[in-house]
Amino acid sequence: MTGNKYMKRALELARQAFDNDEVPIGAVVVDNTTGEIISEAYNLSQHSLCATAHAEMLAINEACQKLAANRLRGMDLYVTLEPCTMCAGAISFSRIENLYFGAYDEKGGAVENGVKFYEASTCHHKPNIFGGIMEKECSEILKKFFKKKRT
Amino acid sequence: MTGNKYMKRALELARQAFDNDEVPIGAVVVDNTTGEIISEAYNLSQHSLCATAHAEMLAINEACQKLAANRLRGMDLYVTLEPCTMCAGAISFSRIENLYFGAYDEKGGAVENGVKFYEASTCHHKPNIFGGIMEKECSEILKKFFKKKRT
Repeated sequence: MTGNKYMKRALELARQAFDNDEVPIGAVVVDNTTGEIISEAYNLSQHSLCATAHAEMLAINEACQKLAANRLRGMDLYVTLEPCTMCAGAISFSRIENLYFGAYDEKGGAVENGVKFYEASTCHHKPNIFGGIMEKECSEILKKFFKKKRT
Repeated sequence: MTGNKYMKRALELARQAFDNDEVPIGAVVVDNTTGEIISEAYNLSQHSLCATAHAEMLAINEACQKLAANRLRGMDLYVTLEPCTMCAGAISFSRIENLYFGAYDEKGGAVENGVKFYEASTCHHKPNIFGGIMEKECSEILKKFFKKKRT
């Protein structure tokens, strides 16, 4: 599956987060016509001291800035973990076309778990959703991180 | 009700947004011990070309920066409209203690409407919620804005 190259990049970003003692989640915004990576980020909520600095938010905000647009039509988002409620909302607002995510998140996810935002009547743009891509690798790095945190 | 002075300030910010042709929603973060306003913002999603630039997100991010903290314990948020899914998530992540909002939002709200995020099992911090404060004024400015947009 060609798309995996972007999830691999998101996973590399998650590894960088891990090495920087951040929650290892990576995200990449890709132009689905040209294949160009427009923006990429990893979770920075610890180091940036910003509660909202999730990988998806940072990547979306950077893509909006780079493209000088508040709608990211024709753009796809790859993220290593199922987006939370906040990020699911941001993905919808920014009109991301296709959402590819890695691990499922029973505790905090909002796509297949929790509020399942994209099925709600208050969701006005639903991306196409592809979950469980490279799930094992995306999940393992998170497990490793939280195991390290507990010891 | 003393708290109204902060909602009045949020409404002033909404009026500034209106005058700048932005969706008229204002938000204020207040230290509930000292009564000091820590940050304030209005919606900038049109002019900043950023899909996530809702008043609440901007006010929360600025408060985190000012206080060099990713948790806003002891802080209250006043916002003229019921927060959407994205902002409801950000309010929870940032540990806002009390959420005061003005108008209810049937189409996009996520507190009393839509996904009702704070009632979900994936919500790990629920603020105290006070809705409908100065509801009429907060609602009217939005109606006026969208009426103007349609003409």
